[in-house]
Amino acid sequence: MKNKPKVIIIGGGFGGLQAAKELANKPVQVTLIDKKNHHTFQPLLYQVATAVLSPGEIASPIRRILHRYQNIEVILGEAVDIDEKNQTVKLHDGSEIPFDYLILAAGARHSYFGHDDWENDAPGLKTIEDALEIRRRVLLAFEYAEREAYLMGKHEPLNFVVVGGGPTGVELAGAIAGIARQALEKDFKMIDTTKARVILFEGGKRILSTFAESLSEHAKKDLEDLGVEVHLDSFVSDLEPGRVKVGENWVDCDVAVWATGVAASPLGKTLGVLTDKAGRVFVEPDLTIPNYKNIFVIGDMAALKQENGEPVPGVAPAAMQMAENACANILRDLKRQPRANFKYWDKGSMATIGRNRAIVEAGRFKLTGFVAWLAWLFIHIISLIGFKNRLYVLSEWFWAYLTRERSARLITGDAEELQDAIRFLEAKPLPEILPENLSKKVVK
Amino acid sequence: MKNKPKVIIIGGGFGGLQAAKELANKPVQVTLIDKKNHHTFQPLLYQVATAVLSPGEIASPIRRILHRYQNIEVILGEAVDIDEKNQTVKLHDGSEIPFDYLILAAGARHSYFGHDDWENDAPGLKTIEDALEIRRRVLLAFEYAEREAYLMGKHEPLNFVVVGGGPTGVELAGAIAGIARQALEKDFKMIDTTKARVILFEGGKRILSTFAESLSEHAKKDLEDLGVEVHLDSFVSDLEPGRVKVGENWVDCDVAVWATGVAASPLGKTLGVLTDKAGRVFVEPDLTIPNYKNIFVIGDMAALKQENGEPVPGVAPAAMQMAENACANILRDLKRQPRANFKYWDKGSMATIGRNRAIVEAGRFKLTGFVAWLAWLFIHIISLIGFKNRLYVLSEWFWAYLTRERSARLITGDAEELQDAIRFLEAKPLPEILPENLSKKVVK
Repeated sequence: MKNKPKVIIIGGGFGGLQAAKELANKPVQVTLIDKKNHHTFQPLLYQVATAVLSPGEIASPIRRILHRYQNIEVILGEAVDIDEKNQTVKLHDGSEIPFDYLILAAGARHSYFGHDDWENDAPGLKTIEDALEIRRRVLLAFEYAEREAYLMGKHEPLNFVVVGGGPTGVELAGAIAGIARQALEKDFKMIDTTKARVILFEGGKRILSTFAESLSEHAKKDLEDLGVEVHLDSFVSDLEPGRVKVGENWVDCDVAVWATGVAASPLGKTLGVLTDKAGRVFVEPDLTIPNYKNIFVIGDMAALKQENGEPVPGVAPAAMQMAENACANILRDLKRQPRANFKYWDKGSMATIGRNRAIVEAGRFKLTGFVAWLAWLFIHIISLIGFKNRLYVLSEWFWAYLTRERSARLITGDAEELQDAIRFLEAKPLPEILPENLSKKVVK
Repeated sequence: MKNKPKVIIIGGGFGGLQAAKELANKPVQVTLIDKKNHHTFQPLLYQVATAVLSPGEIASPIRRILHRYQNIEVILGEAVDIDEKNQTVKLHDGSEIPFDYLILAAGARHSYFGHDDWENDAPGLKTIEDALEIRRRVLLAFEYAEREAYLMGKHEPLNFVVVGGGPTGVELAGAIAGIARQALEKDFKMIDTTKARVILFEGGKRILSTFAESLSEHAKKDLEDLGVEVHLDSFVSDLEPGRVKVGENWVDCDVAVWATGVAASPLGKTLGVLTDKAGRVFVEPDLTIPNYKNIFVIGDMAALKQENGEPVPGVAPAAMQMAENACANILRDLKRQPRANFKYWDKGSMATIGRNRAIVEAGRFKLTGFVAWLAWLFIHIISLIGFKNRLYVLSEWFWAYLTRERSARLITGDAEELQDAIRFLEAKPLPEILPENLSKKVVK
C-alpha cells in the first residue's frame, strides 16, 4: 500500500468522480478532495431552484458513493495552491498533501464579465446553495407581492429575469413560468400569479446556440407557449438591485438569475501555464500541462480543441471522458505503455423546456416535443447516482406531472436573512412613490 | 365579506394551524401571519438533524395547507408588537393590521437561562434551520476527524454532548449514536466512527421526567444499549466553544446540542400582562388575557393550570386543543352564546429511542420496546400533513431501517460558512499542542 503511486483528485463533480471510479481497485492510492461533502447532479439543479426536487434527491455524499473502494480516501477541504515541482497540494488550512499524479477537476462557475459584485443581485446556478438561494428569492417574491397586495390593496405583476439562453437559462425560465402559471396559482388569493412575467435575455442571435437552428427555433416557440418572453440580441450590460440594463433600457425585475458565461476554477491559474479568457488551462493532447506529465486538467477547467477545430464543450460527458482518458494514461504509465491522446466522442445533447417538452440532437438525429422529453427523462434518471435517488426523483416528477404541484416549496434561511431578503425586495422602488418607473416596464 | 369579524392568527405551528382550520369556512375573515412560509412538524425535527429525513418531508407551505379555504389569507411577516386598545398587530416593516380577534400562537424556543450567547456553541432544535445547522455540525465533525487522521495519522474519538434529557434530547442522543455506530461506519476509512462518544447530561434525577419512573428507567437502559452515556444530576453551568462545564468539570465536545429550557415568544411580554419566568402569558380559563376578551394566547406561549393543579404541558396536542377552544369561543360570541372554559385532555405521550424502540404512556397504559416504537411510528405518520409527506417519510424510514443508511447526509452552507465551521472545529485545541486537555476527557 505504502509504495503505490499517490493520485490526488481535486473536485467531486462529474470528472473527479469518474476519475475516482476509473482508479478504484487499481494499484494506486487515491485521495479525492472536495470543498463539499456531496456530488451534485448539476443538470437537475434548476429543478431544486424551482421547488420540484429537494437537495437530497440530486446530491449524494461523495464518501458514500466511493465507500466500497479500499484504495480511495475522501477528504473535505479546499485546495488553494499547487506546487508542481515539489508535487504537493496545499489546502486552505496550510496543510500540504504530496502526490505522484494530480487530476484537477475543480470545474467552473458562471462568469460575470468582470463584475463579480453582480452575483448578489443575480445569482448563478452551480451548487445546491445557489439553487436554494434562487428558490428562496422566487418564492419570497410571490410572498412579498401577496403581502403588498394585502396591505396596500394592489401590486404590480412580478418580473422574473433570466440572463442567458443556454440550457440552464432555458430550463430555469420554463420552470419559473411553470411555477407562476400552474403550481402557485391556487395558493395566492390577493395576487394573480399567472400574470407574472418571465423574461429571458439572450445576447446572441438565438437561444441554445450549440443546437441546430431548427431546434433553437422550436425551443423558442415552446418557451413562448409557456409564457416566457424571449428577447434575442439582448445583451445585459449592467445590473442593480431590482433592475437590469439591456442595451439602453433598464428593465425592472423582482428576481434576476444569471445563466451565462464561464469562469473556470481559479486553481487553473495557480499552475503558471497558459489559460484562456475564462481561466481554462490549455492542455496537451493527453490532458496534461506543459512540462508536467503527471498533472492532468480535465472537465470545465480544461481548454482543448477537437480534431475538427471546435473546442471540447464544457459538458458532463466530456468531463467524464477526459477522466477516463487521464486515468487510462496513468495506468499505462505504471505498465510502461505509451500514452494515448484524448478524443472527444459527442454523444449529443438535450435541453428540456417546461413540463413536458424538450429538444434532443445527436449527430443528424433530432427530436422535439413530448418524445424528446421522454428521452430526456430517461437519460437523466439513469444518469442519477443511486437507486434511491432515481426512485425518488421519478416519483417526484410523476407527482408534479399529475398534480402540477411543487413539493419542495420551503423558504429557509434564518430570520435575519429573511429580513434581508424582504428588505432587498423592498429596496425596489414602489410605483406609488416613483411613478416614472412605470414607463420602464416594457422592453423593446 | 367586508363586515365579517377579522381574526388574526400569529404563528403557523400546531396551535395556529389548528386555529385556522377551526375557522375555515366560518363567518369570519382570517389572516394567519408567520415569519416562515412553512409549517414544521417539530416532533420529527431530530430526524432532519440526524440526516434520516429531508426538510421538505416534514415541512409544508402554510399557504398550501390552507389554500382551499376562501376566508383564510396567509401572510409572510414577523409580528413585533400588539396594540390591544386599538386592536392592531404591528409587523416588522411598520405596517399595522387591524383585528377584531387575535389568537397568539407564536410558540417557544429553548432557553439558555440568560446566556443567549451559548446558542452559537450549542444550538437548539426548534426550526428547520436549527436542524440543518445541527446536521451540518455533526457531519462536519466526522469529516474533520477523518481529515485530521489523514493528515496527522491519528485523532481523538469524537465527543457529542446533548444537554437535556427530555424527549428531544433523548431522541437526538439516540439518533446521533445511530449515525456513529451504524450509518457512517463503512464510509470512513481513517477513523473508527463507532468509537465516538455520545453523552447526555440531564440536570434532574431522571430523563423523560414527565413519564412514569419505570419508563424513564427503561428509556435510560435503551439509550445505554445504543452506546449513549447518560449522566443524571448533571447540570450544565457553563459553555465555551468546544467544551461544556458540568458541576466542577469541563468536558470537551466536538458538537454540543441544547435541548432544555423553554423561552416563550417575546410577543407575550409586549401584552403588558403577567408572564411566568419562561415568558408564558398567564391566561384566563377561556385562554384570553385579562381585560381583553378578544385576545387569546394558546400553545407554548400560554401558562395555565389544569384542574389537578398541574400545568398544561407544552406539547402539540395541548396547543391544538387550545386552538379548538379559542375558536369555538369566538364562534360562540358571534352567535351570542356563552363561552366555555378550556379543559385539557391528556391523550398520553411518547418518545422514541434509537432505531426501533420507544416508550408510550397514556393514563395507566404503558408500552416499551418495539411495540411502543410501532405505535410511535403509526401516530407520527398519521399526524404528518399531506399524503405525499406520509408516503415519503414512511419510505425513508423503511429504507433507513433496512439499510441502516442515512439518506440526507448533505453538508450545505456556502464556502465561507464551511470555512467558519472548520475554523470553529479547529478552535478546539488539539491534544498534540495542549496535552493537559487530555485528562479532561473523562467525566466523573
